[in-house]
Formats: sequence, structure tokens, C-alpha cells
Amino acid sequence: MSKNWEEFLAPYKQAVNELKVKLKGIREQFEKADDHTPVEFVTGRVKPIPSILDKAKRKQIAMNRLQEEMHDIAGVRVMCQFVEDINKVIHHLRGRKDFDIVEERDYVTNQKESGYRSYHVVVQYPVQTIMGEQMLLVEIQIRTLAMNFWATIEHSLNYKYNKNIPEEVQKRLQRAAIAASKLDDEMSEIRVEIKEAQKVFMQKKENEKKKAEN
Amino acid sequence: MSKNWEEFLAPYKQAVNELKVKLKGIREQFEKADDHTPVEFVTGRVKPIPSILDKAKRKQIAMNRLQEEMHDIAGVRVMCQFVEDINKVIHHLRGRKDFDIVEERDYVTNQKESGYRSYHVVVQYPVQTIMGEQMLLVEIQIRTLAMNFWATIEHSLNYKYNKNIPEEVQKRLQRAAIAASKLDDEMSEIRVEIKEAQKVFMQKKENEKKKAEN
Amino acid sequence: MSKNWEEFLAPYKQAVNELKVKLKGIREQFEKADDHTPVEFVTGRVKPIPSILDKAKRKQIAMNRLQEEMHDIAGVRVMCQFVEDINKVIHHLRGRKDFDIVEERDYVTNQKESGYRSYHVVVQYPVQTIMGEQMLLVEIQIRTLAMNFWATIEHSLNYKYNKNIPEEVQKRLQRAAIAASKLDDEMSEIRVEIKEAQKVFMQKKENEKKKAEN
Amino acid sequence: MSKNWEEFLAPYKQAVNELKVKLKGIREQFEKADDHTPVEFVTGRVKPIPSILDKAKRKQIAMNRLQEEMHDIAGVRVMCQFVEDINKVIHHLRGRKDFDIVEERDYVTNQKESGYRSYHVVVQYPVQTIMGEQMLLVEIQIRTLAMNFWATIEHSLNYKYNKNIPEEVQKRLQRAAIAASKLDDEMSEIRVEIKEAQKVFMQKKENEKKKAEN
Repeated sequence: MSKNWEEFLAPYKQAVNELKVKLKGIREQFEKADDHTPVEFVTGRVKPIPSILDKAKRKQIAMNRLQEEMHDIAGVRVMCQFVEDINKVIHHLRGRKDFDIVEERDYVTNQKESGYRSYHVVVQYPVQTIMGEQMLLVEIQIRTLAMNFWATIEHSLNYKYNKNIPEEVQKRLQRAAIAASKLDDEMSEIRVEIKEAQKVFMQKKENEKKKAEN
Repeated sequence: MSKNWEEFLAPYKQAVNELKVKLKGIREQFEKADDHTPVEFVTGRVKPIPSILDKAKRKQIAMNRLQEEMHDIAGVRVMCQFVEDINKVIHHLRGRKDFDIVEERDYVTNQKESGYRSYHVVVQYPVQTIMGEQMLLVEIQIRTLAMNFWATIEHSLNYKYNKNIPEEVQKRLQRAAIAASKLDDEMSEIRVEIKEAQKVFMQKKENEKKKAEN
Repeated sequence: MSKNWEEFLAPYKQAVNELKVKLKGIREQFEKADDHTPVEFVTGRVKPIPSILDKAKRKQIAMNRLQEEMHDIAGVRVMCQFVEDINKVIHHLRGRKDFDIVEERDYVTNQKESGYRSYHVVVQYPVQTIMGEQMLLVEIQIRTLAMNFWATIEHSLNYKYNKNIPEEVQKRLQRAAIAASKLDDEMSEIRVEIKEAQKVFMQKKENEKKKAEN
Repeated sequence: MSKNWEEFLAPYKQAVNELKVKLKGIREQFEKADDHTPVEFVTGRVKPIPSILDKAKRKQIAMNRLQEEMHDIAGVRVMCQFVEDINKVIHHLRGRKDFDIVEERDYVTNQKESGYRSYHVVVQYPVQTIMGEQMLLVEIQIRTLAMNFWATIEHSLNYKYNKNIPEEVQKRLQRAAIAASKLDDEMSEIRVEIKEAQKVFMQKKENEKKKAEN
């Protein structure tokens, strides 16, 4: 059985690796264009087997329908500095021709009750394996650093309390969500300042590099 | 001259690489001990040549005294999830035998006027080169993720305005510093909750890994 | 001008990074299938600007025709343990749907006079950039470790002597080519032995891992 | 029990990671000094648990004496282009102050009967852990690429046949060892040529880089 899982998950792992390289590349392209990059960093993971089993049970997905019905077995996360960058990333994703978008969920505009904020894009991505091409679902989550910080903590707490976080802790979490959101707002306000600053910074660095090399 | 710099900076680059591997190792050791790790991630850099020249001029350091008098040519940064983790990292650094601490500056307790918070430890670190051993100064900065986020932005703005940030922008920066600090406080309050949650999380993951492999 | 090159080469760098991840993935898939992997390791590079200029001059390619006419600006190299593995890699490349093969050159069967052996596949690969999709030529070279060792050295000597290697040195190079080829032949003879050995090895490792974890 | 092993091996893993970064650094230092580098690449591994158990049994080492008596639990391998480079690496290792050499074995001059060639240096290396300093034995193996290629194959075959390789296969292995050795000899003969070529190559690259950037 263990062997079976490894074979099933191998192309998902490959998809995650490829999409990480592809989306990290976007970051460099923006930097080279001397522009503020909407991509701060990119991470990815394949869902752990126990979480797949849990979710399949909860959502009543048959084991032989996982590939078609569970859309976050492969997950890629794009972290942004500013809330405004999230839209730029989505715009880029919509223009790519190496996958098809099958679903979008906007939890930035429509924050979850828990305080969760994030933008989800589910894509259908073709992986070339040694057995031929496979079409896989991959979930791409786009968030600010503050949204991500908060979400990581909520994830841990959900785990601890088996999705039944006590009211007391929930309230604390909501206060933290407000603090995270407040930080995002303050950041947006100095965004224009920062964007210009970073552009100047990049050019200076470039000029100094040239000077130093002569 | 360019050639000269490359040779001068090579052992600093080596020191940064070695200390990054060493401090990242700490993270893994805590994780394996099923304990909350005080080290979230570690970055490092060698100061760019133009910044070395700038600082030498500003601080009146002679070119042949850089190795002895400029303590941040090599810099390593340790990011923590909680303010409380900063002390744990400092405690570990003080116990290490692979370098000597020559200075500590606590800008966490004594925040700078600008809003800057961070703990700085300057160490004397021996690097083995193809020409023999060299003793180098390395600055290790320890901060929370929120402190780091803020500091990165202040750095860009300082660059843009050549260390003369306009009052208007300074005020905005201070508001952002307060928001960052607020987020750190909220995080500290749910820290005990989170620490326990993460421990449980790690054990579950471990157990599920074993189950899945059988 | 420098800026121009950086923009021109950025998508090539991206193509190399993506293809490296894709072809390294093949290696893991074979390993997971408990099979001998034809891919030992994968490297890649973007041709240095001076080499592009040299070649453009030599082959009379206009600067605005580089993208269409120079097929090795992006290069990926696949190293194999055995001569027989080269065919397996070619077979896999022909089946992939993420690029089109536009040319194949077999310098394994038809060794160059110099002693050079390698299999070249030129593909047309689509890269998604922040400005849209770009079609790029990429040269994939497939070789054994011994072929690669020899080729690296010939490359250095060609550089030194500006493509006019003295007869004396050429003779030595040819003797080295014979020694490299002899090593490949001996390897092929024990190949079946080794292939079986590696398979057994992998299974043992797997079993011992499981035992150790219980 | 599994948990125990993880804790026991963690500092060995750390030692391997640190020494890999340290010895890879040597490579870069030689390259920056525009000199032929004796270090082609560096790998490392912690001995798998089943192999530790096997060896402990074979050599009658008690489980509580592993740290003192088994000297290859942590292993680092340095690959060289030429046989002559091996001595340069040894010379460098003897001069380092971050570990003490406790043993050297020269299987290059005194090839094993099987055909095995390699130079082994056992060092005592201090690792700083979260529990304090630990002194560990690490085995550093220095070999040419051809020696390494052969050794990898012998290792697989030994595994398959449980250290009882049939005579027929042994003969084939010895023929391959002779071919590998022959390749090393041919390489040594063109070494002076190549060394000069590589030096010229590096300088040209450097010059062209500068030209391209202006």
C-alpha cells in the first residue's frame, strides 16, 4: 500500500517542483525589469497522506476519485508584500498557457468568519512522467506575509483542537487577525513610497555594481 | 582593484555560508527534539562594496582597518516567530564554542527612535582558507518576522532618501512600526496555545508518517 | 546594451531552470519505480555573452536572428552511467508533450574526428514570461560520465588554443578519448550485473528503512 | 528506538552539512585565485542505520561505543579531476584548525586487492548542538572521478552479493578498474596542458564578463 501512495503522489511532487521554479522565475523577471515584484517568495508541498485520508472521509471522496475531486493534493503558495500585489499575481496566472484555471476563490475580499484571508486559484496542470502525460489539479494560494503568518498559526491550532478551537482561543485568534490586517493596511499606505524606494534602490545597486567592477 | 575586493570578501562569504548552515541546523535539532523551534529561518549576506565604502567614510574607518573595525561586513539574520524566542537564540549563541562574542546590542528592549527593533550580536569567527586561518567579525541579528518586515522597508526608504526620510514618511513608518509591534504582542499572547499546538502537530505528523509507511 | 542582454537572456535562463527540474524529476521517477535510472545527473547553463557573439560571427547569424537561428543559447546536459542509457533518455524526450523536437544529432554512433561523443536534441520550448509566451530553442546533450569528462577537457583546450589545438596535444586528447571509450565499454559489460545489483540494493535499503523505523 | 537513532545521528548529519560547505568553499577560493582547483565536487552522507548495525556486528563494536569506535558514521567525499590533486587536498586538510586528523589511509599508493583506490582521512570534528559541544569522528575520502565511478559500482555489487562477489564478476570489475586507472593516467599526461588551459579560460571569461557589462 505504501508503495502505491508513493507512485500516486510522485507526479504531484513533480508538479509542485515545476510550478515553484516557474513562479519564482516571475519574481526574477520583475526584478530585472527594475520593477516592484509582486512575488515575495514561493513555497509548495504535497498534502501529507493522513490529511488526504481525513479530507476524503470528510468530503466523501472515493479513493479512486482523488485525482479528479481533491484539488489541493498539490499546493503552491505565493507570498506578496502588499495586498495590491495579489491582483497582479492573479492577472499573470490568468495569462499563462502552461495550465488551465478551473476555479478561483476570493477569501481576501470575502474574509472567512475565522479571520482567514487568502486568494485560491485551482489549475489543471499537465505533468510529463515516464509513463506519459498526466493532468493534475494544483491549488495556488496567494497571500500577503501577514495573512500567511496568521494562517500558519490557525492551521496549527485547528490541528491541536481537531477543528474545534475553544471560543477563548478563537477570540485571541481574531484579535491577531485584526492586528495582521492592520499591518497590511499600514503597509498599503506607505506602498507607493516603498515602491519608488525599491526602484531607486535597485538602480543604485546596479550602478554601484558596475562602478565596483571597473 | 576589483580583484582585490573579491579576495578580501571571499572569506566573509565563506563565514556567512558556514554560519547559515550552523544556525539552520539548530532549527532542525529543536524540531527533532519535538520542541518549539526558536529559529524560523536564517538568511545571510556579505555587505555590498558600495555600502562598505559609504560606511567607512561615514565612520572614518581606514581601508586597511576594515577587518578589525567594521563589524557587519558579514551579516547573518535569524528570524523568530515570537519575541520570546529571541532570548533562546541569544542563550544558544552564548554557549557555542566555535566563535567568541565581542559585543551585544539590545534594540528590542531599547527600541531605536525610528521604530527599529532587533538584537545584534557581534562575534569573532575563525575561517579556514587556502592561505590559513582568518579571524573575522560577523554580525548576527535576531528578530521576529514582524520586526524584519518593518526593518526591510525602513532600509529601502533610507536608501531612497539617503538617510533623510521626510517627516511625513517617517510618521507613516512609525505607525507601521506600531502595527508590527501590536502583531508581535498578539502573537505572544497566543504563544502558549500555539507552542502546545505545534508540539501536538509534530507528534501527529510523526505518527501518521509511520502509519502510512506500514 | 548590457541591460538589453539581461532581458534577452532572462527567458533562456528560465527555460534552463524549468528543464533541469523536469529532467531531474525523471531520475526520481525511475528510482521510485525501483528501476535503474538512465539519468545520473542533469546540469544546465545559458551561453555566456562573449560565446554568443563569437558564434554569431563565425556562423554569420544577425543579432536580430539569434532567437531563431542559434540553437544552443540555452543548454541542458543529461549525464548517464551507461552508453545504453542514452537511448532510454532520447526515447523519453521524444514522448514528452511540453516541447517539440526540431533536430537530433547522433555523435555517439558517429563520433567526431576529434574524439567527441554525445547525442544532441534541439527542442522548441515555450516559456511563460511576464510579457506573455515565448518560444525558445534549447539544446539537450545526452552523454555518459566518461564522455562528459573528456568533452569538458576538450572544451578547455579549444578555448586555450582558440580552436587550433596543436597536433601534439590533439594526439594526447585522442588517447584520452580512447581510454574514456574503453571505460564505457567495460562498464557496459558489467552493466547487467550492476543493474541487477542496484535493484537489489534499492529494495534492501527500502526494507532496512522500514525495519529501522519500527 | 527509532527516536533514539534520530537523536544520535542528528549531530552527525550536522557535521556532514558543515564540512560540505567548508570544503566546497575551498573550491571557490581556488577559482577566485585564478588557479586550478583540486576540488571538483564534494558529497556527504550519514551511514544508513542498517549499515551501522551490520558493521558494528562485523567489527564487534558495542552499541554504546559507536561514537568512539566507528569512524565513518559521518562521511564526506572530495572528488578531484587529477590524481595529483589528491595530495593538494590532503595538504590543505592537514593545515586546517577546525578539526584534528586522527588517522590517514593511503589506498591510492597501496591499491586494495579488489582494485579500490582512494585516500581516507579520519578527523575529530566538534559540533555545537543545542545540548552543548560534541566531538565526532568523520571520514573524509579523497578520490578522482574515475576512482569514484569504479568504487560506486563495486559498492553496489558488494551489496548484491553480500560481500561475496563471484570470481567471474570480480574479474570484470578488475578490468574496469584497469580502464579507470588508464583514464587517470592519460588525464595526468595532459594535465599540465589542461591546467594552463583552464587558467587562460578563467581569465578570458573574466575579461569578457567585464567587456559585456560595459
